Amino acid sequence: MIRTALTDLLGVDHPVVGFNRSPGVVAGVTNAGGFGVLAATAYTPEELDAQLTWIEEQVDGKPYGVDLLVPEKFATGDPDDLVASLRAQIPAEHIEFVEKLLAEYGVPEGAPGSRHSDELAVALNPDGAAALLDVAFSHRISLVANALGTPPPNLVERAHRAGVVVGSLVGQQKHAVRQLESGVDLLVAQGTEAGGHTGTIATMVLTPEIVELAGDRPVLAAGGIASGRQMAAALALGAAGVWCGSLWLSSHEDITPLPVKEKFLAAASSDTLRSPTRTGKPARQLRSAWHDAWERPGSPGPLPMPLQPMLVSEAWERIDAAAEKDHAGAKALESFFIGQVVGSFTGLRPAADITRRLVADCESRLAQLNSLTD
Amino acid sequence: MIRTALTDLLGVDHPVVGFNRSPGVVAGVTNAGGFGVLAATAYTPEELDAQLTWIEEQVDGKPYGVDLLVPEKFATGDPDDLVASLRAQIPAEHIEFVEKLLAEYGVPEGAPGSRHSDELAVALNPDGAAALLDVAFSHRISLVANALGTPPPNLVERAHRAGVVVGSLVGQQKHAVRQLESGVDLLVAQGTEAGGHTGTIATMVLTPEIVELAGDRPVLAAGGIASGRQMAAALALGAAGVWCGSLWLSSHEDITPLPVKEKFLAAASSDTLRSPTRTGKPARQLRSAWHDAWERPGSPGPLPMPLQPMLVSEAWERIDAAAEKDHAGAKALESFFIGQVVGSFTGLRPAADITRRLVADCESRLAQLNSLTD
Repeated sequence: MIRTALTDLLGVDHPVVGFNRSPGVVAGVTNAGGFGVLAATAYTPEELDAQLTWIEEQVDGKPYGVDLLVPEKFATGDPDDLVASLRAQIPAEHIEFVEKLLAEYGVPEGAPGSRHSDELAVALNPDGAAALLDVAFSHRISLVANALGTPPPNLVERAHRAGVVVGSLVGQQKHAVRQLESGVDLLVAQGTEAGGHTGTIATMVLTPEIVELAGDRPVLAAGGIASGRQMAAALALGAAGVWCGSLWLSSHEDITPLPVKEKFLAAASSDTLRSPTRTGKPARQLRSAWHDAWERPGSPGPLPMPLQPMLVSEAWERIDAAAEKDHAGAKALESFFIGQVVGSFTGLRPAADITRRLVADCESRLAQLNSLTD
Repeated sequence: MIRTALTDLLGVDHPVVGFNRSPGVVAGVTNAGGFGVLAATAYTPEELDAQLTWIEEQVDGKPYGVDLLVPEKFATGDPDDLVASLRAQIPAEHIEFVEKLLAEYGVPEGAPGSRHSDELAVALNPDGAAALLDVAFSHRISLVANALGTPPPNLVERAHRAGVVVGSLVGQQKHAVRQLESGVDLLVAQGTEAGGHTGTIATMVLTPEIVELAGDRPVLAAGGIASGRQMAAALALGAAGVWCGSLWLSSHEDITPLPVKEKFLAAASSDTLRSPTRTGKPARQLRSAWHDAWERPGSPGPLPMPLQPMLVSEAWERIDAAAEKDHAGAKALESFFIGQVVGSFTGLRPAADITRRLVADCESRLAQLNSLTD
């Protein structure tokens, strides 16, 4: 057993946080003695309510949390007609570029009336995030984390009244300073090698910097951690545990389409890039023909958040759907958020097995390290 | 004492390699029980001979090594008139861009007849590297390392006949496969956070990948390592030791101009970038007005190695000289190769003190880690 400030704070057996959008992964990690965190921004309030209810049925009172994406900066619109006013800000040139790209790769039309891009516009707006938070606080969550920017002031108060731990992901020191001032209980130092929204500083450098700033408050390391050796390294850097995201994309329970998972299994650590072409902010993902196209001459370049995800979300639904039917063009474009650890994926396993293996390998690595100084 | 495959292979007390262009740093690290490696490409054969002689006078038989930059791909010229034929390949547009940039910042003219750019052209050529190797093998070196590309086939044979260990820096798995096939004894897994020529994969991800490939051959971790915690993390990742470069830029013995060192002491980890504008290949350095200028509209973009260093080396001599005289424009442009650990620099210390402190802090960190599983 590895005891740290994190296992004490969250009341878990292992200092492993499993972040994922799939409720099955969250339940699997929590049931294996880690701490599952659901990516709530992927859902409408009604869907989130159903997912959290399901998770609680699986975990028998064991702790879990939620993560929200509340960006500090985003394009704004008319609050009374948010979706339409945002949609009006998307240039025709961009819409045409995406349509031409899908046509070039022969990606079939999607089912009409995709709501997903509208939901994203709402979820990424402060009001939309607040609605998701209301749902989260109506459940038995132990932690609420924010992946982008400083939590709204009332969030920290509200969480603390409810006995809920507040965490924040940070990519550089100045972000951590602001987060600590806002009263968060826990920081996640996320290195550039991580999947999804990430900065440029590597976990090896960032973690001790944030640990130094955080004083008594625990810091988790995120980015580049998918094995016992990497978890032991994170603890050596001063982290009180690890926040793993990409690792669970190699789990059975993860809901990412199988064609994406197959690309992950075949990928090397050098096959990712940081690109703003999916969300409007730099996010690490698997490099595909999609990214090559956005880098070609004539590309209009990405829009800011949330316009870029509104622009491309239907395209990704079409790509995912066609790739599932083995469409060659769609498979060339297919991609998803993933960190550099993708190169270590060798197969799909249950999330609970991944959790237990990570911890056991870390424990044996720590024992080996101890023998170096005998 | 930390014993690893590296301390056994090189016959040193501590698994710490100190890479630097300053003979004082090399001697300081070796004398403190680490292993100093001199960056030989900075010198002519005659200068290198003098430097190695001086080092051997300082270290009383203790082991040290040299590092050469032998690129696999480079612009080539007429072997009978190498410098002139290379210089003829530099477009007038580029020369004008550099001159205008220096004028914009008011950097004074340099002393006429700078030879340095010509020497670089020679040193970065295979024949030039061979002349430096001849000098190195005439001294009592224990290791020869190559920072770019696969060592020439005869280098491995020659080194092994002389009982000299051959090492190579690698930034991704496919490079390591080639290096291992070429017969190197030791690999250095260099993460993107490192200073100088570096790839995109972080140390946290790259190190275990290379350790896995290398089998019985020791692997050092490089990039992001400047403290005992980071050294302990490198050992946790499976490295047999650490290859530190940037760290020594915070030593008294390092010959980097003081204005650069002052910028380093004031810098944050977020103040570096990977840029090809100094050597023609992506190399991490401190971001300055120089890099901003090369990113502006109208920039001609960098030339390949060795044309880019030939183009800019005199400019850097002028910038360094003016910055030493407290020239504001030169200080705005001033920069040098450095990794993301620059954010941890708090002052200048002797290289031997840095070495001893690194090892002592690593030992105490390993002891703390052991208590996590009590």
